[in-house]
This record gives sequence, structure tokens and C-alpha cells, in this order.
Amino acid sequence: MFENLNNLKTYEAGKPIELVVREYGIKPSEIIKLASNENPYGPPPMAIEAVKKTAKNMHRYPDDSYYELKDALSERFDIKNENIIIGAGSDQILEFAIHAILPKKVLMAGITFAMYEIYSKQFGAEILKTKSDKHNLEEFYEIYKQQNPEIIFLCIPNNPLGECIDAKDVFSFIEKIDDDTLIIIDGAYQEYASFKDKNKEIKPKEILKYKNVLYTGTFSKAYGLGGMRVGYGIANEFIIKNLHKLRPPFNITTLSLKAAIEALKDKEFVKMGIELNFEEMKRYEIFAKENNLNFIESYTNFIVLFLKNSTSVANNLLKKGIIVRDMASYGFDAIRITIGKKEENEKVLNLLKGLVN
Amino acid sequence: MFENLNNLKTYEAGKPIELVVREYGIKPSEIIKLASNENPYGPPPMAIEAVKKTAKNMHRYPDDSYYELKDALSERFDIKNENIIIGAGSDQILEFAIHAILPKKVLMAGITFAMYEIYSKQFGAEILKTKSDKHNLEEFYEIYKQQNPEIIFLCIPNNPLGECIDAKDVFSFIEKIDDDTLIIIDGAYQEYASFKDKNKEIKPKEILKYKNVLYTGTFSKAYGLGGMRVGYGIANEFIIKNLHKLRPPFNITTLSLKAAIEALKDKEFVKMGIELNFEEMKRYEIFAKENNLNFIESYTNFIVLFLKNSTSVANNLLKKGIIVRDMASYGFDAIRITIGKKEENEKVLNLLKGLVN
Repeated sequence: MFENLNNLKTYEAGKPIELVVREYGIKPSEIIKLASNENPYGPPPMAIEAVKKTAKNMHRYPDDSYYELKDALSERFDIKNENIIIGAGSDQILEFAIHAILPKKVLMAGITFAMYEIYSKQFGAEILKTKSDKHNLEEFYEIYKQQNPEIIFLCIPNNPLGECIDAKDVFSFIEKIDDDTLIIIDGAYQEYASFKDKNKEIKPKEILKYKNVLYTGTFSKAYGLGGMRVGYGIANEFIIKNLHKLRPPFNITTLSLKAAIEALKDKEFVKMGIELNFEEMKRYEIFAKENNLNFIESYTNFIVLFLKNSTSVANNLLKKGIIVRDMASYGFDAIRITIGKKEENEKVLNLLKGLVN
Repeated sequence: MFENLNNLKTYEAGKPIELVVREYGIKPSEIIKLASNENPYGPPPMAIEAVKKTAKNMHRYPDDSYYELKDALSERFDIKNENIIIGAGSDQILEFAIHAILPKKVLMAGITFAMYEIYSKQFGAEILKTKSDKHNLEEFYEIYKQQNPEIIFLCIPNNPLGECIDAKDVFSFIEKIDDDTLIIIDGAYQEYASFKDKNKEIKPKEILKYKNVLYTGTFSKAYGLGGMRVGYGIANEFIIKNLHKLRPPFNITTLSLKAAIEALKDKEFVKMGIELNFEEMKRYEIFAKENNLNFIESYTNFIVLFLKNSTSVANNLLKKGIIVRDMASYGFDAIRITIGKKEENEKVLNLLKGLVN
């Protein structure tokens, strides 16, 4: 039994990192978590209020048509409800797409969102990666021509590195790819990228005309609902209709549905969070320059800082209650820090100063 | 593209039934929903309170080890955390198991939980069903010997019919099945069945010694959290370790995790709901006897009543704001009614009286 899974790693859930930090004698309220690119400004206040009111309905399954959420997304993106599928995070949309195609080969950037590889392997696909860590569309095209992968993943902007290719280059690339290869554009951080630079903006409406492009978006980042697991896929009706064949009923919770609908209304809050994100990011850039550290220019809510002995630096921060992501497992002597609130960033930078010099 | 999905039906989300009812001029507050076997007594009050307090953390991913919930389940069932996997509803555990095995053939009762067939088809399996609608273990065994399915689904008690075979018969059956066929015991309504009749109780601890048995349970029914999508699988460590290879991180929400932990503490509430369920069910049984209607003796929180023109009866109830499940699609002239609260059941029975005579 389970021979199919022999080349998959068992996910061994570790001790929660908060518990580790508490072992250093740090109070839960003093832990600063900058490791998972959560929105440091919390959930939108309108979503919090709506969820509190709806809590008494947790025994009720959600309205599985999700029509109210789809209406709101349709309006936001100027598309139709038939172009939308709702997922438990945009991850789940990726899973539907991979399951739907059962690709022999999939192609992605050298370093990119881990779930592309994890889901693809679960469905038996061979993983092709560009030699470049960041997105290099020439390399993508070379490998595509030689290997003919059935799915290409583009993470625009890219997690965990933060770089972002221009939208016009993405569309030129799409034009060169045959219809029988699905291109998935993961726009989890598009709200950040398009705010910083309009050249990075991928309008989901513009991908609808392609037979083979699927855009994914999420409520986990700019919309401050990481813990609620709501994402969406946008594509032409044929793709969406097929993905729906694999969507289990009630794939998001009653409260997640409510929270996402309200988050879309809370435009001021979302805008404020994105603006503050880039203001605060400047501190890290200045810090890096002052300390002769390299960093990757970021179009997201996190930044990758290169430094010596990233593992030791990350552990030292941990002892002070600050959780960041060590990039050593990617072969990078670097840490990825989610841009926090002002006071959080100040604390991190003060500590970092002592650790990098 | 998507040829793999050709023999799957596209799920077309209909208009939410609440909207349909409103079109008859019925206020949302007056709709009585007895179609999805939700707990009519709502979520446990302790869960509601905890969720309200936790709403401000919706931007935070849940602790993906779920250790607190697993600790509580381990204690409830006298097992170890390593015997438990958490799913987005027990459905998701079924999906993991089917994906893990990629069965050529699966076996189930003639009429049983629809997701067994839906998930199995998504992974390309052929569906074998007993001729008997209800669980008939002799028939299961005959088909097993002839066809050698890799997965056998037992729904104990059975949704949507409500019948329940004895635990001792389930264990005798397990003993006769080879180790290379996985037996899944779906215990979604076990809290109800074991309360009504101790002979129906399947103790998850007792299935751990088998190499090929997986038990699934849920927080959607007796625990009043249908909308929160939390379930679990229990089995020996080898099975659980393998299923974890297919679990995506953060597969339940931050609030679902909190709600489930609290629901397990709220023992009085859960007990009260189960007791009232069977008290109220008696009204339906008496009604059926008085009106010469057949019904299936139920070990769950719903009852199947046979009557003439079930579709017309269901539609007539709908016009009065009462949503029940018409069983015509199963070839039954019957309706399935979730046992509601006292006042709901009284209203339903009063209306039914006029419709069945």
C-alpha cells in the first residue's frame, strides 16, 4: 500500500516555532513573526466585525455557489462570475489545475513558491527548473521548446525572492507558448507589485482571451486573511468549468466566505497596508546599503537580505523572539524578512545591526 | 487539455436555495433549513466565544502542527497524536486516501455518501456498489472476492439513509479482508449512533491494530461546526504518515482550529444536542406510524420518510420556507429531513400532515 507515494517526503510537523521561542523565556505577546508574509496590519476591521457577527452560524455550511464573493471579484476585475473559481487559498487552485492536467513535466523558476513542486510531485510530474533562481523568460522558453512541459508556473512577483518581471514580457512569453501547455500566473503578491510599479500589473481580464492561461490570486496577503484560506482562479470559461469538476463542495468555510466578501469592501484598509509596506521596506533597503549587504529589490511584502551565516543570524533573532525565514535551504546565505509594522522593523533592524557587523 | 476529466460532471453551482425560498416571499429569518444535517442547536457556545476573540488573528496562518487539537482528540479517543491527521472536513481525509492509493476499483453501499464516488472518479477509479441500498456485508464480501477493490467504504451509520450495522459485524468483516485493501470507516455520525445503541459504537482505538483500516470523523455534525470544515482521520502510524504526504499545509483555517479545540471541551452542549435529537426524532417516527408512512430507523440526526410524490412534497415545503432533501435522485420516493429544533419539527410535521393525506 502507498507505493505511489514512495518518492514523496512525509511532512513532519515540527514543534510550532512560537513554542520554541517561548522556551527562550519570551512571552507570546512579545514574539514578532516575520516569516510567513502575513499582513502585519491584521485582518481588515470590516472583516473582523462581520466574522464576529457570523460566528453563531458556524454550524451552517456556506452557500456553496459563493455567488456573493464571485460578484464582488467580478466587479473588482471587470470579468464574469463564470471566469472565477474559489479555492481554499490560491494553492488549492494550483492543485485543481495540476490534478486536471496530470502533467508529465512542469516548468518553474529555479527558486519559487514551494507548492508548485509539492503538488506536481503528488500527481507524479517531473519537475523542470530554470538554472536562474529568478524568473528568466528566455531560459523558460528554451526549456519549454526542448522538454514540452504541460504546465508552466510563473510567480509574478516571485515568492520567496521578491523579484518581478514586467507584465509586457509575460504577455510576449504567453504568445509564444502553444495552447496545449497551461501557463499559470500566480498573482499572490500582485497588489503589492502593481502598486509599486504599474509595469508589473497583470490584469486578470487580459488573460481571458488565451485558451491556456490561468491567473491565481489570494486573500492571504494584501487582504490580511492568511489564516482564512481563500483564494481564486481566473481564466476563460472552459478552463474554469473544468476546474470546477475537481472542486469539493464547501471548500472554504462559512466565516472565510464572509471575511473575504467584507475584505473586498474594506478598500482603505488594504491600500493603507500596501502603502505602509513600501514605506517600511525602505528602512531595510537603507540598512542594507549602510551595512554593505546585498538584497533583492522586492515587489512584495518581504525582502531577501544576503548576509554571512544566515542560519546563525536567524537563530540569534529567534532567541530574541523574532521569527524570520532562513534561506539556507535554498542554497542562499540570506534571510527573508516579512516587512512588519514600524516598531517591529525598528526592533529587527536594531538587532540585525549587532549581528551583521 | 482536460481530457482526463471527460467522464466527470461539471459541478454547476445552482442558485442558493435560500434565494429560491426568498422568491416565495419568505424572510431569511423564517427559512427552516433541514437539508444538510447541520446541528440545529448551533455551534457550541464555547466555540463561538473563542472564535470572536480570535477573529483579530485571521491574518495569521494556523499553527500547522495542529498539536493542540491532536492532543485533545488523542485524549478523547485514548490514542496517540501520531495516529491522527486533520482534514478540511472528513471529506478531505477521504480524498487523501484515494489519492494515496489511486485505486482501480472501489466498493461502497448502493446508496451512501456521495463524495466516495465523486473523489474516486476524480482519481480514475471504477465504482462498485452493492445491489442493496443499505449496507449488506455479505454482498460487500461477495463483490470484494470477485473484483478485488483496493478501497472499501463503510459509512457507519450511513448517510443519506440513516441505518447502522453493528460494530461487531464491522470487525468480523475487517478480519476477512486482505491487508492490501484499505477499509475506510466513515464515522461522521458515530456520536449519534453510539449514543442510541452501544452495539453501534466503533472505537477508533480498536482499528489501530489493523494494517488496512482508516477511521474518519468530523466536527460538522454532533460538534456543530459544519461550516468550519474540520475532520480527522485515525489509523496506525504507517497509514497516517503516508496520508500526511498529501496534506497541504494550513488545510484548516485559524478560526476552524480554534473552534474545534473549544468544541471538544464543550461536552455538555454536544451531549444535549444528541439527546434532544433523538427525543425530537420520535415525533417523526410517531407521525410516520400514524400516517402509515414507512421510514428507515435512523442512528443519525436525520430521518428518511417514504411518501408518494416526494418531489412535489419537497417543493410544497419549499414554498413554505422549509428546505428538506428530496430522495428522488436516488430512485426513492422519499424525503430526508434533518431533525430540527422542537418548534421547527412541529412546523414541518403540521405542514406534512396536509401534504401526505
